[in-house]
Amino acid sequence: MNEADRLAELFMRFPGIGPKQAKRFVYFLLRENSHYKDQLIKSLEELKHTGKQCTRCFRFYGDKYNTSNLLCDICSSSSRDKSLLMIVEKDIDIDAIEKTNSYNGLYCILGGLVPPLSDKPTDLIRIRELTALIHTSLTENTLQEIIFALPVTDYGDNTQEYIQKTIRQIVGIDKVKLSHLARGLSSGLEIEYVDKDTFKSALERRN
Amino acid sequence: MNEADRLAELFMRFPGIGPKQAKRFVYFLLRENSHYKDQLIKSLEELKHTGKQCTRCFRFYGDKYNTSNLLCDICSSSSRDKSLLMIVEKDIDIDAIEKTNSYNGLYCILGGLVPPLSDKPTDLIRIRELTALIHTSLTENTLQEIIFALPVTDYGDNTQEYIQKTIRQIVGIDKVKLSHLARGLSSGLEIEYVDKDTFKSALERRN
Amino acid sequence: MNEADRLAELFMRFPGIGPKQAKRFVYFLLRENSHYKDQLIKSLEELKHTGKQCTRCFRFYGDKYNTSNLLCDICSSSSRDKSLLMIVEKDIDIDAIEKTNSYNGLYCILGGLVPPLSDKPTDLIRIRELTALIHTSLTENTLQEIIFALPVTDYGDNTQEYIQKTIRQIVGIDKVKLSHLARGLSSGLEIEYVDKDTFKSALERRN
Amino acid sequence: MNEADRLAELFMRFPGIGPKQAKRFVYFLLRENSHYKDQLIKSLEELKHTGKQCTRCFRFYGDKYNTSNLLCDICSSSSRDKSLLMIVEKDIDIDAIEKTNSYNGLYCILGGLVPPLSDKPTDLIRIRELTALIHTSLTENTLQEIIFALPVTDYGDNTQEYIQKTIRQIVGIDKVKLSHLARGLSSGLEIEYVDKDTFKSALERRN
Repeated sequence: MNEADRLAELFMRFPGIGPKQAKRFVYFLLRENSHYKDQLIKSLEELKHTGKQCTRCFRFYGDKYNTSNLLCDICSSSSRDKSLLMIVEKDIDIDAIEKTNSYNGLYCILGGLVPPLSDKPTDLIRIRELTALIHTSLTENTLQEIIFALPVTDYGDNTQEYIQKTIRQIVGIDKVKLSHLARGLSSGLEIEYVDKDTFKSALERRN
Repeated sequence: MNEADRLAELFMRFPGIGPKQAKRFVYFLLRENSHYKDQLIKSLEELKHTGKQCTRCFRFYGDKYNTSNLLCDICSSSSRDKSLLMIVEKDIDIDAIEKTNSYNGLYCILGGLVPPLSDKPTDLIRIRELTALIHTSLTENTLQEIIFALPVTDYGDNTQEYIQKTIRQIVGIDKVKLSHLARGLSSGLEIEYVDKDTFKSALERRN
Repeated sequence: MNEADRLAELFMRFPGIGPKQAKRFVYFLLRENSHYKDQLIKSLEELKHTGKQCTRCFRFYGDKYNTSNLLCDICSSSSRDKSLLMIVEKDIDIDAIEKTNSYNGLYCILGGLVPPLSDKPTDLIRIRELTALIHTSLTENTLQEIIFALPVTDYGDNTQEYIQKTIRQIVGIDKVKLSHLARGLSSGLEIEYVDKDTFKSALERRN
Repeated sequence: MNEADRLAELFMRFPGIGPKQAKRFVYFLLRENSHYKDQLIKSLEELKHTGKQCTRCFRFYGDKYNTSNLLCDICSSSSRDKSLLMIVEKDIDIDAIEKTNSYNGLYCILGGLVPPLSDKPTDLIRIRELTALIHTSLTENTLQEIIFALPVTDYGDNTQEYIQKTIRQIVGIDKVKLSHLARGLSSGLEIEYVDKDTFKSALERRN
């Protein structure tokens, strides 16, 4: 196997990349100038050395100066609102939310969802880590509200329900408010395609 | 041109039907038994005779007994809540909403939308008919709230704004409440694909 | 159930039409003028009376003048080349081929395909009707070549093989030639997406 | 800009990769173990050093042992049939053809296509390189046939016509045969979707 094939095989492990696309990447790199390839190699080297997972919210992030810091830039920022904790499924959800410039609190990444009727939910999401984080936040007397930002699907709803029950066992309603992003009409939706749940929520909460 | 081709040409005027699909309809009908074709012809005949447009909400409907009634079954029903008027773009939106079994008020169909910067909005939607309907309802002392259920697009937003202004010129805020279906996360939405407007609405209105 | 719903139900039996599309057809018809609806009804009536299946090639066709003719316009035409018989799967294949203006022989419609390992092929395609047609044509001393125009799929290939075997049992190689449309690169094909069978055929038969 | 964002920007230059997919690659790499990242970096380094373009057919390839060889493995192989030269548009076409195991001749990559009515075709494809290659091959007395394997589109047909004219100016019909992959039904094609050119070719060349 030559170098081009070996590289194509490595690219095939990238998410969503099949053999044809992997080959296209290799041909692209063969055609590109040396400078671009040097940049890519350097960037990968640095990611290898500085790539870290935040011990608080579990985001993956690149620690530019390779500090001894254990927290990501969001968790360690003094300008974020520590009274809000938003629960999301995965890293890329945070990217989407940050891009809206509409939320200034903290996050916790579950790393998965709990399907309905799942018998071992603790293996599927970071529930222990989340409860530990809530305990710490309560001790620090900062946390006031936990906001669920999970997908609007059976998996998302079931995960939310499971976590809400678990949280309620460790912290009283008066201590921390539990909320979730409102359901309603998303941008682009045509009324003719509205489903029952979405319409009901949108009608009840009309404004 | 033979009969099959003539029928295919007529089917090509059906919404969303191209020449290939029109031919498939004809072949389907050629293969079908006489009974089905008789039913179809009879049903079309009756639609021709009983098909009416409601003079109040502008819905098209089939008046089964070919009565002298001028109102559709929703507008003439005594069990619908006459204090609520929902403004929609087109007939099929009402079908979708009625299927949710979540709304029991009346409707008015605009028959179109007003694009941004349109200079003749009165030609595009039934604004005169709508204001007349509101006047009548006010005289009857029944109307309390007008709910906008328009698509969540630039066209929908612009139409809503235009109608709200027009309504406010003829009826005071204390007389009739104006509201619209709430924006938020629709069923099936993954957080990673959320847009700014949807996220902001969903966060502000979290519950 | 009102007339509009009944008609929507009838439209839902049309090929490829779901409940939403069926409703759109009904709303379209409700909005259309009487003249169009009259034309549609008249055309359906005539199709009902004049719709026939050719007893030779099994095409469905509209017999405009409702004659006592049993053959379709292709089979009864004196200008078609009776030495060629093309075997196709379904009616709409003939439409596509006739539109190319490149073939002037006769057809026979199988009405289906034989899946590999099928144990009752005689129930799936008009094999008895086809062999009868070949017998008649041989008696008339006209048929010289049978051309297979079946889809380039496992089903198509298996059907062709099965029919070839059956035909060879009733008529010698010297009497009737058996051929099939050549394999090769179809219009629009990019070489990067070529499959092995297509490339091999296209290379062997390069010109 | 942190390291993760910088890497995402570099990935966005990969063919067909948008900002979202680029981010997914970075998150994937952050999650992957060190060993995989090391392999990827090493493979990129080697590609940088061993990536070459064949001076004969213009393929990009990885020269594993970084030899002083100027020809790719196909052009320098003694087992390939030097009497056949296949003209393709791009690198990935060769991959697809080699995978069919049906062709054992040599290649020449044009690096592009000539649109109809183009006034500077020499800037768009390697026509000078191709004629030089043909001259050399004729001197070596090996070349017997040039096979066009270009996309079955207007661009492909126009390119083939342009090159054929150019070749005929430098080499007689008796010296080198010019051919192209046969047109016909590609795998998977349903007769109902056949176009005129494809059907005509398939009918003429039926077998």
